[in-house]
Amino acid sequence: MKTRNVYLDNMPLEEALGIYEEKLRAAGAWRQLPGEFIPVDEARGRVTAEAVFARISSPHYHASAMDGFAVRAKDTFGASETNPLRLKVKEKAFPVDTGDPLPEGCDAVIMIENVAPVGDEIEIIAAAAPWQHIRAIGEDLVATEMIVPANHRLGPYDLGALLAGGITQVAVRRWPKVVVIPTGTELVQPGSELKPGDIVEYNSRVLGGLAEEWGAKVKRYDIVADDYDRIKKTLLAALAEADLVMINAGSSAGSEDFTSAIISELGEVVCHGVAIKPAKPTILGIAQGKPVIGVPGYPVSAALACELFVKPVLGAMQGLVLLARHTMAALLSRKVMSPPGGEEFMRVKLGRVGGEVIATPMSRGAGLITSLVRADGLVRIPRLVEGIEAGQEVEVELFRHSQEIANTTMVIGSHDITLDILANRLRLKHPERSMASAHVGSLGGLMALRRGEAHLAGIHLLDEATGEYNVPYLNRMLGNRPVVLVNLVLREQGLLVPKGNPKGIGGITDLVGKGIKYINRQRGAGTRLLLDYQLGQLGLSQEEIEGYDREEFTHMAVAAAVASGSADTGLGIYAAAQALGLDFIPVAQERYDLAIPGEFWDTPHIRDVLAILADDDFKQEVLALGGYDVSRMGEVIFSS
Amino acid sequence: MKTRNVYLDNMPLEEALGIYEEKLRAAGAWRQLPGEFIPVDEARGRVTAEAVFARISSPHYHASAMDGFAVRAKDTFGASETNPLRLKVKEKAFPVDTGDPLPEGCDAVIMIENVAPVGDEIEIIAAAAPWQHIRAIGEDLVATEMIVPANHRLGPYDLGALLAGGITQVAVRRWPKVVVIPTGTELVQPGSELKPGDIVEYNSRVLGGLAEEWGAKVKRYDIVADDYDRIKKTLLAALAEADLVMINAGSSAGSEDFTSAIISELGEVVCHGVAIKPAKPTILGIAQGKPVIGVPGYPVSAALACELFVKPVLGAMQGLVLLARHTMAALLSRKVMSPPGGEEFMRVKLGRVGGEVIATPMSRGAGLITSLVRADGLVRIPRLVEGIEAGQEVEVELFRHSQEIANTTMVIGSHDITLDILANRLRLKHPERSMASAHVGSLGGLMALRRGEAHLAGIHLLDEATGEYNVPYLNRMLGNRPVVLVNLVLREQGLLVPKGNPKGIGGITDLVGKGIKYINRQRGAGTRLLLDYQLGQLGLSQEEIEGYDREEFTHMAVAAAVASGSADTGLGIYAAAQALGLDFIPVAQERYDLAIPGEFWDTPHIRDVLAILADDDFKQEVLALGGYDVSRMGEVIFSS
Repeated sequence: MKTRNVYLDNMPLEEALGIYEEKLRAAGAWRQLPGEFIPVDEARGRVTAEAVFARISSPHYHASAMDGFAVRAKDTFGASETNPLRLKVKEKAFPVDTGDPLPEGCDAVIMIENVAPVGDEIEIIAAAAPWQHIRAIGEDLVATEMIVPANHRLGPYDLGALLAGGITQVAVRRWPKVVVIPTGTELVQPGSELKPGDIVEYNSRVLGGLAEEWGAKVKRYDIVADDYDRIKKTLLAALAEADLVMINAGSSAGSEDFTSAIISELGEVVCHGVAIKPAKPTILGIAQGKPVIGVPGYPVSAALACELFVKPVLGAMQGLVLLARHTMAALLSRKVMSPPGGEEFMRVKLGRVGGEVIATPMSRGAGLITSLVRADGLVRIPRLVEGIEAGQEVEVELFRHSQEIANTTMVIGSHDITLDILANRLRLKHPERSMASAHVGSLGGLMALRRGEAHLAGIHLLDEATGEYNVPYLNRMLGNRPVVLVNLVLREQGLLVPKGNPKGIGGITDLVGKGIKYINRQRGAGTRLLLDYQLGQLGLSQEEIEGYDREEFTHMAVAAAVASGSADTGLGIYAAAQALGLDFIPVAQERYDLAIPGEFWDTPHIRDVLAILADDDFKQEVLALGGYDVSRMGEVIFSS
Repeated sequence: MKTRNVYLDNMPLEEALGIYEEKLRAAGAWRQLPGEFIPVDEARGRVTAEAVFARISSPHYHASAMDGFAVRAKDTFGASETNPLRLKVKEKAFPVDTGDPLPEGCDAVIMIENVAPVGDEIEIIAAAAPWQHIRAIGEDLVATEMIVPANHRLGPYDLGALLAGGITQVAVRRWPKVVVIPTGTELVQPGSELKPGDIVEYNSRVLGGLAEEWGAKVKRYDIVADDYDRIKKTLLAALAEADLVMINAGSSAGSEDFTSAIISELGEVVCHGVAIKPAKPTILGIAQGKPVIGVPGYPVSAALACELFVKPVLGAMQGLVLLARHTMAALLSRKVMSPPGGEEFMRVKLGRVGGEVIATPMSRGAGLITSLVRADGLVRIPRLVEGIEAGQEVEVELFRHSQEIANTTMVIGSHDITLDILANRLRLKHPERSMASAHVGSLGGLMALRRGEAHLAGIHLLDEATGEYNVPYLNRMLGNRPVVLVNLVLREQGLLVPKGNPKGIGGITDLVGKGIKYINRQRGAGTRLLLDYQLGQLGLSQEEIEGYDREEFTHMAVAAAVASGSADTGLGIYAAAQALGLDFIPVAQERYDLAIPGEFWDTPHIRDVLAILADDDFKQEVLALGGYDVSRMGEVIFSS
């Protein structure tokens, strides 16, 4: 093969797909795989390699379609209620059950219900039409008729039709074989003891799992260190057995990124760098007549590159088009900007709240595998579009069935670990329901309610003027809109400190003037308001606190910062301290409530949640976390 | 368990589903199966039995998100273009690559691009913000955070997140075990030599395949003869190992239908007879705390009963709701009547022809497995509705992706075996395309074009007045509508007779007065018009022909009738004779054309078909069938 390296920094997606297909075709690597004969009984899910024609007819004989008597129609002509006719059994009328072959010479069946036995005769009061109640030979399938064409994925019904047509062996395309090669000196296998700098190698499992879902047989190779010769040797071994190879990663331009150079040496790099975000540094290559795809290292980039470039090739090999995801229209909840020059694939959460489906953009970081777990779909922002306005309709490529979206209860607001437990209980009790929560702080939750993005919001908002929780904010944020406030828990807030409290922090006053590095929550978070309230009560100012400006979005993130030593303390809940083995200096008990717009009160979204709040097992599970008081759980605190 | 037999002749579907679920719950048979720990690497597609919480954070250390230098942010304050700042490498600035752990004391990373090396120092012209370009500990996942709840089906992304969170073993629900018992003395295994009366046992493969698609592990038992004690013994064996048992069939009220009595003896029949069509004689039973479902014998009934009653139970066992099919709105092509008192499930073909999606009702016989292969979906006709008018919008539960429907070329009209070959070639060359054909005769095809139900029609219509093929009918049927007529084949029509021509038939004249039993084609079929034309030329009358009124809808059905001896001869094409080993008495060569409305001419539906007509391989394959002349294949005969 002629080697021609094209290092294209930013090739538009459609162009990259087009050129790659063209080059693969030229190299014989875009091809339908050959067939192999297998028993029909093992063929469910396989794809036919050739058309299948019936060997026998079904039925293969004229069969009675009823229990009754087979007759010659012309023997019955003239029978009527006024002129009953008698036929001698076993001479002119032959008893048959459903499925029995039609006796020689007969051409009709009379149902047993329409026959009166009289001695060794039957009496009928209506003539039989020729061919009535007969399943004629070939009614279902005629021998030589095509049952299914080539390139047809065989489902359960197809298996039945093949067997009915006398087919017991069928030619199906062999499975495409895919090898995934994880490369990187920093990678370690899952379950290893981790040192700082180690990265758990899970991408090959995600890539392999995707390829399997698209019909491939996958072999994951062992981790290969960043070494040109070792990677080259491994790729050669993979090419010897695979129909397609993915190398992950080594696809960007870093000093230890060898993938592109190795593919060039062994074959051709068709494209290195696609104008998409994420997954830009994807490498589309061909070696030894086989597709070799360099998949970027960040997990979201890896999954996207696999879907965009591996899926169509695997489809072609199977003689199928692997179908696109179902789509759904939704309204974007907030404005997003997108850098021009690249097509962006933005993860969104979908909520059917009230009548509209709202798409809420998620974090756009390529490093967050959890964002793919939690996303409901993708929105494409075209290459030359710089952004999408809030409220604009977008088309979402769905990760889930639209029915699941409709059955998802959206909880937006402050984070509390009891919401995870609640979500799990809901799913156990009602497998058809899901609870999705987004952690944007208490004020963010009320804003989400105002915009119609959530069914309920978890809030713990201390009003500085009155010292009262939550109710003053409802009026302020939701105006005259009817809303019900239900208590979830009373919980301890306190300062999280490393085990043993090495800096000897005793309370809020110690945050000032003692060289303590604090870590704060984001603006609008109830925990931040609590700090501000406490500072106000104590006459301290925010500026005096080192780290007041460093923000995290969840209790657990604050706890993690303290556990790692990057901060000395932060305000948070007891459960977070306990989960990461920190000590906890109590500061205040606060009321964490659920704010529920009146219009959702009488829906399954709320009813099913309230039922769990009344469940003793749930209360016990929450109490076991520590730091919670469930005495008011489920109580209606306020209703407007 | 208390045995209570309720023989309910005609229980409405919703009621049957409701009572069965209630009874199964009471018997502990509607339950989520227990969990088993398996490696995450083997867990794709499995369903979690409990919530999974992260054991470790991801990243588990503060990591550089860029290649560059790690610094203390406060060491960089004041740096600007007018006031560059220098930091000593390895004292104040530490080189890091992406993914490297942040050195002790550092809290920011400066990208390599923004740094100028100066001896053993670096020069910067901007201050670093604290925590810039750092992937903080727990950014993706914080230890103790819930990754997925219980009752969540694990996909490739989930596996990545579990491994990232330090999980290598996961508790998943064990597979539901299903046993399918085929019963019936008339049943034989596929591949057996068939005698009249034998029925090939394929239902258990269809039922088993469906259960597998819904997540079960399936065991098919051997065929059990119709014998009370044998079936009872077999059911007891099945109950000992299965979570759910299907017995097929023995569910109707015939003399050898033991299923209901046996379930009653071993447990309880909750319902026998559901108000649905097909599948009315379904039995919903419980024995030894397990669901036992008596599935009717006709294949379409069996598949429907399985879907309606087995699927929800298997879903519950897995802690899932097995989702309904996607649906699509379509316009019904013709009026259908439905007997009141039962909910009918009607199979339809869908065609997106022009702008509208048209649903064409298919045969409603419960015995046709091929109807399930060819159907695109189901339309439910509610219990108290007696019919649906032509043109009314219906909701179709889809067997295929909507994209496949859009890519299907609808061919309605006369049947010719070359259409099967054409459909197969189309699929091989364009795996994304399908061709669906309905055989309603030539006139039926033109009527379908007129109603906008088809992209093209196959016709061979001899005009009695002019002796000209097809063109006169276009004017008559389609008026001024632009249409193009393209030749597919010239083909021999002749009399099909048994091998050796035992009745010595020499031509059309022999059909009269010689005791020959003829089998005719349906009204509107070109082959019937040809017979009528020939009779007219010979001065013979239709009434003189015995069997003139017995109609079949395809050439192959006529051939099958002759092969089976139920008729002595019929008019048909050479290919049909050859396929069933019949002799062929030529009568005439006719022109079989494709009529294509002008509006579809320049669409892929037609372009891709015309390309195949120009393909020499296709011509050779047609010639090999015999009886065809391909000299005019693809020629435009007429265009208006």
